[in-house]
Amino acid sequence: MYNYFSSNFTLGILGGGQLGKMLLNETRKYDIKTKVLDPNPEAPSAIACNQFVCGSLLDYKTVMQFAEDVDVLTIEIEAVNIEALRDLAQQGKKVYPSAETLAVIQNKQIQKDFYKNNNIATSRHFNFASKVELVNHLKAHPNLFPQVWKAATGGYDGKGVQVIKNLDDAKQLPDVACLLEDLVDFKTELAVIVARNSSGEVKSYPVVEMEFHPEANQVEYVLCPARISDEIAQKARDLAEEVSSKIKHVGLLAVELFLTQLNDVLVNEVAPRPHNSGHFSIEGSYTNQFEQHLRAVLDLPLGDTSTKQAAVMVNLVGDEAFEGNVLYKNIEHVMSLKGVTPHIYGKKFTRPFRKMGHVTIINQSIEQAREIAAQVKSQLKVIAHENA
Amino acid sequence: MYNYFSSNFTLGILGGGQLGKMLLNETRKYDIKTKVLDPNPEAPSAIACNQFVCGSLLDYKTVMQFAEDVDVLTIEIEAVNIEALRDLAQQGKKVYPSAETLAVIQNKQIQKDFYKNNNIATSRHFNFASKVELVNHLKAHPNLFPQVWKAATGGYDGKGVQVIKNLDDAKQLPDVACLLEDLVDFKTELAVIVARNSSGEVKSYPVVEMEFHPEANQVEYVLCPARISDEIAQKARDLAEEVSSKIKHVGLLAVELFLTQLNDVLVNEVAPRPHNSGHFSIEGSYTNQFEQHLRAVLDLPLGDTSTKQAAVMVNLVGDEAFEGNVLYKNIEHVMSLKGVTPHIYGKKFTRPFRKMGHVTIINQSIEQAREIAAQVKSQLKVIAHENA
Repeated sequence: MYNYFSSNFTLGILGGGQLGKMLLNETRKYDIKTKVLDPNPEAPSAIACNQFVCGSLLDYKTVMQFAEDVDVLTIEIEAVNIEALRDLAQQGKKVYPSAETLAVIQNKQIQKDFYKNNNIATSRHFNFASKVELVNHLKAHPNLFPQVWKAATGGYDGKGVQVIKNLDDAKQLPDVACLLEDLVDFKTELAVIVARNSSGEVKSYPVVEMEFHPEANQVEYVLCPARISDEIAQKARDLAEEVSSKIKHVGLLAVELFLTQLNDVLVNEVAPRPHNSGHFSIEGSYTNQFEQHLRAVLDLPLGDTSTKQAAVMVNLVGDEAFEGNVLYKNIEHVMSLKGVTPHIYGKKFTRPFRKMGHVTIINQSIEQAREIAAQVKSQLKVIAHENA
Repeated sequence: MYNYFSSNFTLGILGGGQLGKMLLNETRKYDIKTKVLDPNPEAPSAIACNQFVCGSLLDYKTVMQFAEDVDVLTIEIEAVNIEALRDLAQQGKKVYPSAETLAVIQNKQIQKDFYKNNNIATSRHFNFASKVELVNHLKAHPNLFPQVWKAATGGYDGKGVQVIKNLDDAKQLPDVACLLEDLVDFKTELAVIVARNSSGEVKSYPVVEMEFHPEANQVEYVLCPARISDEIAQKARDLAEEVSSKIKHVGLLAVELFLTQLNDVLVNEVAPRPHNSGHFSIEGSYTNQFEQHLRAVLDLPLGDTSTKQAAVMVNLVGDEAFEGNVLYKNIEHVMSLKGVTPHIYGKKFTRPFRKMGHVTIINQSIEQAREIAAQVKSQLKVIAHENA
């Protein structure tokens, strides 16, 4: 067992966004040295790490050089140079998640093929190298609509994902490698976060339920526990753990799932890192997802994933009518509600639907937590300064 | 209402020890700008603040200069230059707690006189300007023993406090201004943390019970809730809130109490800041004490002080047989226990009884939490490296 605590051991983190910022709370708690790489000099993680390096996550040389003096390398965003990760691992560096796992996840075509080839329940899909291929396929199958179109790479927070209802919709799409998925007629979207350390210990969190904003295709509320039967919850956790074991990831894996009208559970997509759907765990769980990620990549024993009380998480996204220096209107009202904790990510500039923070509501009753969450949502507005 | 979040508002913090470090977790959560003053360039708060200034907390000029560009000034340690705080407040700077409150608390003679003059239940005491005065008093009252001797200023973590049983004990004491208190025959020691913002909103936390290390006079376990009747708990909270209101503090006030054999509750002493007895709240409470301190000094609404589940906090102090670069022996075993969260303060060097960290245990049952805490205590050792 390595001595990680108040020692010279250094954890390298690729990415310095809000996920990295929340991860740094945990490295600070354990006094574990950190070094962060991000292209933005004002990234949320630029302070609270021991060393900040400003540079591209996608540049091979930058990543190789950054990792030279770190002992373990991890990520807080998938869009990193995979070739560098592969070479670092070959040189003996500990890299979690691995380049192999990331390669499967980074490209949604490969990710969907992986589910199919491994008999993991998911919706039917078709891959296309270009827009021409896509359009030809749709012309040949006029009864296929509606379909979900996804860009193979680069999608984030609902970007690069679109429901298409006819050929005209398809013709508006960008010309990129992409895939089509059957539109799943789901009751609700669920998610399970699975932790796995390099010794192979596995623990999953309780199933959460996600409510989406109808327009922005971003998660508005995350509820833990999900309001589903124990049987369905077990099915969802089993499926998530199956993905984790088959994809051989180390760290956290957030598995997004559909619960269909027929009570089937299908994998939608995964993220190999702490995830928006696990933010509730900071206040709600014995072990929060960021601490769990640390434990996993350092091969420490995983922490208990049970929850202290029910939790609802509300995303704070920029109001669609504002762009400018951020102002959290009515935050003081929201802070007077029972069991409410806002998290402000530290982005100075707001724009429509930008993820600016989140609010967690803890309560003995999930129904009451959901009610308070609705109050939070209706009161707290992410707007811009008048003087901006 | 001032815009504190992701703005140029700056909170100044005098002191950069572990309490400051944990406070910075909360300023980071809210993206509130901070500036920290501490004489130690390697202080636990030297990172995670926005600006760190290395300098003396007791030097008038240093404190005045430090505070020039901060909007609100607070403390994480009482030993600061009070004159500077008084002058800053007169210049219109917001300073919480106030110089007046700190002046009462910094000097234990004045603190005890304050209780007496305000009819706050406390043990009987006598003040002395010097050791000669003390010894003369004891010679004149040979039946007074045992007594508790306290230095008027400079005491910390059990230093500056001693039980004296006879005149010989007294003769060994340093020659400083001091006081004697009647030794209280107590069942247990309790503590209540009271928060008060500048609008006068007051909230107290549930009563905690403290178990002390017999030799080091340091708290070994803090249990929340205390294992006492509701009636006694109410009496303790009422007394703590009475102290808070009479001392007119703003921020957190940790009130340490004795529960006597006759079920009387007496004030022992207070600290005007986040406190060791409130660390359980990080994992145990809806609103942890550090966030509550922030809310109080920024005049935001105070958060709910109820607890999610039972909690026990174990202090991690340096093993008495070791001095050198710290090693947390068996920390990985402790991390595999249910609901256990270690906090490492970031001091590289351990010495006997030095406060190096703490561990929180969360459980539905306080008895089970206490059992796990005993396991933590017996397994986890704060020792020095072999190669140190």
